[in-house]
Amino acid sequence: MTSEATVAPTGPAERIRALFNPRSVALVGATDKSLWSWTVYRNMCERGFSGPVHLVNPTADTVHGAPAHPSVAAIGEPVDLAYVMVPTEAVLPVVAEAAEHGTRSFVILTAGFGETGTGGRALEAELVDYAHRNGLLILGPNGNGYINAAAGMAPFGLPFPQSIKPGGIAFVLQSGALTTSLLSLADARDVGLSLMVAMGNEAMLSLSDVVDYLVDDPATKVIALFVESIRDTDAFRAAAQRALRAGKPVVAIKVGRSQAGARAALAHTGSLVGDDSVVDAAFRQMGVIRVRSLEELVVTSGLLAATGELPGARIGVVSPSGGACDLVADRAADEGLEVPEYHPETVARLREILPEFARAHNPLDVTGYILVNPTLLSDAVRAVAPDPGVDLVLAFAEPPRYPTAAPQVAIDRAKAITSTIEEVRDRHGTPVVLLGNVLTDVTEHAKGVREQSGMPHVGGGIEMGVSAVGHAVRWSRARRRMDSVVPRARATEPALPRQPGGVWAEHQAIELLSAAEIPTAPTSLARDAETAAAAASRIGFPVVVKVAAPGLAHKSDIGGVRLGLRTVEEVRAAHEAVVAAGAAHGEVLGSTVQPYRPPGGVELIVGVVRDPLWGAVLAVGLGGVWVEVLGDSAQRLLPVTQADVRDMLAELRGAELLRGVRGQPAADLDRLVEVVLGVGALAHQLGERLESLEINPLRVSGTEVEALDALVVWRE
Amino acid sequence: MTSEATVAPTGPAERIRALFNPRSVALVGATDKSLWSWTVYRNMCERGFSGPVHLVNPTADTVHGAPAHPSVAAIGEPVDLAYVMVPTEAVLPVVAEAAEHGTRSFVILTAGFGETGTGGRALEAELVDYAHRNGLLILGPNGNGYINAAAGMAPFGLPFPQSIKPGGIAFVLQSGALTTSLLSLADARDVGLSLMVAMGNEAMLSLSDVVDYLVDDPATKVIALFVESIRDTDAFRAAAQRALRAGKPVVAIKVGRSQAGARAALAHTGSLVGDDSVVDAAFRQMGVIRVRSLEELVVTSGLLAATGELPGARIGVVSPSGGACDLVADRAADEGLEVPEYHPETVARLREILPEFARAHNPLDVTGYILVNPTLLSDAVRAVAPDPGVDLVLAFAEPPRYPTAAPQVAIDRAKAITSTIEEVRDRHGTPVVLLGNVLTDVTEHAKGVREQSGMPHVGGGIEMGVSAVGHAVRWSRARRRMDSVVPRARATEPALPRQPGGVWAEHQAIELLSAAEIPTAPTSLARDAETAAAAASRIGFPVVVKVAAPGLAHKSDIGGVRLGLRTVEEVRAAHEAVVAAGAAHGEVLGSTVQPYRPPGGVELIVGVVRDPLWGAVLAVGLGGVWVEVLGDSAQRLLPVTQADVRDMLAELRGAELLRGVRGQPAADLDRLVEVVLGVGALAHQLGERLESLEINPLRVSGTEVEALDALVVWRE
Repeated sequence: MTSEATVAPTGPAERIRALFNPRSVALVGATDKSLWSWTVYRNMCERGFSGPVHLVNPTADTVHGAPAHPSVAAIGEPVDLAYVMVPTEAVLPVVAEAAEHGTRSFVILTAGFGETGTGGRALEAELVDYAHRNGLLILGPNGNGYINAAAGMAPFGLPFPQSIKPGGIAFVLQSGALTTSLLSLADARDVGLSLMVAMGNEAMLSLSDVVDYLVDDPATKVIALFVESIRDTDAFRAAAQRALRAGKPVVAIKVGRSQAGARAALAHTGSLVGDDSVVDAAFRQMGVIRVRSLEELVVTSGLLAATGELPGARIGVVSPSGGACDLVADRAADEGLEVPEYHPETVARLREILPEFARAHNPLDVTGYILVNPTLLSDAVRAVAPDPGVDLVLAFAEPPRYPTAAPQVAIDRAKAITSTIEEVRDRHGTPVVLLGNVLTDVTEHAKGVREQSGMPHVGGGIEMGVSAVGHAVRWSRARRRMDSVVPRARATEPALPRQPGGVWAEHQAIELLSAAEIPTAPTSLARDAETAAAAASRIGFPVVVKVAAPGLAHKSDIGGVRLGLRTVEEVRAAHEAVVAAGAAHGEVLGSTVQPYRPPGGVELIVGVVRDPLWGAVLAVGLGGVWVEVLGDSAQRLLPVTQADVRDMLAELRGAELLRGVRGQPAADLDRLVEVVLGVGALAHQLGERLESLEINPLRVSGTEVEALDALVVWRE
Repeated sequence: MTSEATVAPTGPAERIRALFNPRSVALVGATDKSLWSWTVYRNMCERGFSGPVHLVNPTADTVHGAPAHPSVAAIGEPVDLAYVMVPTEAVLPVVAEAAEHGTRSFVILTAGFGETGTGGRALEAELVDYAHRNGLLILGPNGNGYINAAAGMAPFGLPFPQSIKPGGIAFVLQSGALTTSLLSLADARDVGLSLMVAMGNEAMLSLSDVVDYLVDDPATKVIALFVESIRDTDAFRAAAQRALRAGKPVVAIKVGRSQAGARAALAHTGSLVGDDSVVDAAFRQMGVIRVRSLEELVVTSGLLAATGELPGARIGVVSPSGGACDLVADRAADEGLEVPEYHPETVARLREILPEFARAHNPLDVTGYILVNPTLLSDAVRAVAPDPGVDLVLAFAEPPRYPTAAPQVAIDRAKAITSTIEEVRDRHGTPVVLLGNVLTDVTEHAKGVREQSGMPHVGGGIEMGVSAVGHAVRWSRARRRMDSVVPRARATEPALPRQPGGVWAEHQAIELLSAAEIPTAPTSLARDAETAAAAASRIGFPVVVKVAAPGLAHKSDIGGVRLGLRTVEEVRAAHEAVVAAGAAHGEVLGSTVQPYRPPGGVELIVGVVRDPLWGAVLAVGLGGVWVEVLGDSAQRLLPVTQADVRDMLAELRGAELLRGVRGQPAADLDRLVEVVLGVGALAHQLGERLESLEINPLRVSGTEVEALDALVVWRE
């Protein structure tokens, strides 16, 4: 054992780097009888790995036609990584033996651990415990391993016939079998990989750990994820934020979109926050690009690896097909991309190069005349790129699928477009994104043309390509504004009972909000009719009288609300009536008296609930049918920034109501944002003690913003 | 000239068939100087066409290395099809010369006609006129021609290097350049074509004509369209309905989704009917499958060409990847497909074949154990197919992209799954649809495996594949119910002024509706206050008094409505007030008196407007913010069926309101459907005379359905 092999890596990142960059590998449990063993052995030997690959089998002298060792100890030299595929019960002994001889990194293919139930979980815990105590790092168990494309090595249990192109995309998957599909797609799109990791059970190394490591991996430009569930949400959030800061896009599929998360929550807001909508909100907030399909994952990652940050959403489109222009215009609108008319000077430049029958507008159809004039597309890109209204150019050009009679022509055309792209980038700073019309493979022939011409990445197809541009533009925007916003925090601690618990009735909840400087309607609790009448006189008529009963939702449905009361007599009668109505449904404290607000304005629901995975979630929705029938709400994880709250309000389908419709005044958005920020800050400060908090309604009428009713539930 | 060539086809379909199936072709205007000429010549000679291909050039003896004729006359034998690529001004003389010598079918590549403006339009009209008078049929001008894959012939002006596989999909495109992209996609998906047509200017032969022809073309199973605009909507509708009846799916991209059609319409409903939403509604109504992307067009067409009609929406999923199962579950939910739990007997069958660690539920992950047990997937399909809760099986299996060490293994596996599919179809009648995980090309190697194993069509990727299954299931449903519904027609003619014109005031409009047995609130026009008071007494208090002023919209916004009037004095005062309020805005007839209906129930807007392309469109929406803020409405072309109206109501995002929320009674849907059908039938009967008709609101409260206000605008 040399001293080199026993030097323990100094930090988590170094340990992960060591796992993915071993100088020597042992396949422990290698046997001719196992297809997996054959596969891993081939993957290790035929991909260009230069270090030794040892085979370990306690009984066979020869495995896969090569000499085998009875144990790791018997290898007689240090082994950086052990790929373990022994039976479940033999895993820990094998790991321990290797560890004793200096191995620090392990990939465990063997299944039968945490995924199988209680017994397996115990075995897994024992294994992880041993690893922690001995400074080991384990990928898996029940995972196929990884492919390090740059190093040409693949301690990986699934066959993949094609060669892997090294490049900037790291794939991290909570799925074994989909690795194969993503390798096919990467091959078909001609995009390069830095790393492909199948996470397995994540007993020790988690998806978030790998993302965090990749933020600092110089080979990785884009981090692409297939996610089934994120267990360590705080770690994921931290890693995602580091990635955004570092300018490395994280692109993710998160499955389980359709499983409406059933959640028991007393507060109404609970019904707003479906599990998946929280994921959506969380990803958006962190700058994680959420995609829906494997194709979108690879096309978006490929595009971002090629372009990096994009300057804006205004695209100039140049294509030899009018039909393609139509499709791009539709898709651009879907994605919120602008296709502005070209500047008169651009039009003048285009008029000089276009055939007479072509129209010089955006999207630009240079027409089939490109068959006659092969420089037409490049000329058009050069004409459009300096346009002051254009942030980036989408040009439709791709290498040919099949050889043609004159192969050099295709290469020359590819070279021409390549040098045009470089020229306009250097002269005008305008990025040019190449797209094809349809998502077909970059064939072997096309790969050759790209290689011989230096042609940059070609995004696949209008459908996925424009989607990818949309993602890239939105991600770039999120990145640019990243530093301009900080979450709102509250300076003063609210005065709270030492151990708040249970459900707080309206007047208490209103008091808490009011103390946190959130505007509320004056609210009095009246235990009897006389107190109610006195409170009404103090507040001023007309008033509202509501039953005061902690935990009683939908008070008006049970006759527990009386509106527009104008005299003390009416107030007394109303008190008795609402208390009687409420008594049928449980404990009643009395009534709550508030000033009556006439109809008008917009009613919002602002709430905070705890998501079991993501923690405190702020939700804003429009009241009434908006939330109940449409489920129209917007969410963000706490803490939130001013920009987050502005986005939330803009996301509501009923957002137009806030801008004023049919004679209603427009809401004072600045004021509203401040109030919602205040609610978020209060809830964030209350932290773990709070189960849920809901204002329903928050009445907004012009500059008036006021909480009329509220409910607070404390954690027991 | 033989007599055969001069026999004119007897009907439009025969003439189109003759155009697409010539026995001899002349390329008129062939020249070595034109890339198009080279291309068409190669496409005609190298694709297997067995008839003669004549080259016509007035000055050259040799073109493209072959002997040329100075004119069509000089060919000396009959020519079925002339492909014309002479200069614009020479087109008509050339066509006339060929026609005189017996040619009846023409493809005109030459541009410079209708697409260029007034001069070109005149030339085009002259050409079409000549063709009509002489019994000719022209495809184009300004069109690339067509490819008849079965006949191995391509009078087609664009190069395409790959061979074209004959098969069941006919592509008809209002785009030239996209033909190339669709040929690439068809090649990549390994799907076969019957015909590919680039329509050009449609001077004579329209997209709808070709669709109608294809309904009877035995080679064509699916009609795939790229549509920029449908000019002859009636013909298209008729052809689409014939296709549905014949069981031939029409799959279409219609571009221009993003161009919000600005429409001047007095009636409020005008704002509901964006051009594109009418296209959406019309396609749905006709059973035309609308897709968004070229990929979706080819994948959906490919799937339907392979499966035909599908029995239902309940899918059993069998895959070797858990991650793929997650993705399928999400996508199935998007598409309205059900993934039911398997029947206990199915579970028992699965338990016998699955490895112990696999869970026997739907979607079924048979696990990576498939590497060890190659029959596992077939076994699972056989276990799932008889399940009484499963209408079709989605099985994930595809031919390998690349050759492997044991090529016969891949072929044997493909044969096994193929025979399994045949077996379960024969034994249980359950169709099995094969899908791959990702949309990558069916490579040359994979095509070979399919050919050698007889493996059926494999839909491309989870994303597009499940989308295609969704389309196929919905299309099948539309086809099944096609015969069970007939549009509602009215028996009696409404009593109308001989020449109704202008805008009708409320009382007149209500009268028209009432005469057509549409329930309306009793409505009286009062020219003075006394008449109003008398009307109120007759109707019964409380009443509503509204200003009566034809063409005055949003009466309440200008103070023209008084609600809940309880005495004759209040009615008199209200009459004077609303008349005064209305007078500021134009001519006032007096007031309209109606019974007052208390708040509650749901208010609908039901309207009919004329779409400039599609004609009369019925729209139904929920009133208030629903229409104004959300644009939540559903449309159908008239005439409508009961099923159409049911669908319309179900499509509304606020549909839940009709089922009753927060204490409101559920609407009597049968009654509501009858009333909306009645409105549709009346408008259909009024026909061209009607510009627009709108009921706003149609009040619905339980079994009460009643028009409270209406507006009718007649065409001038």
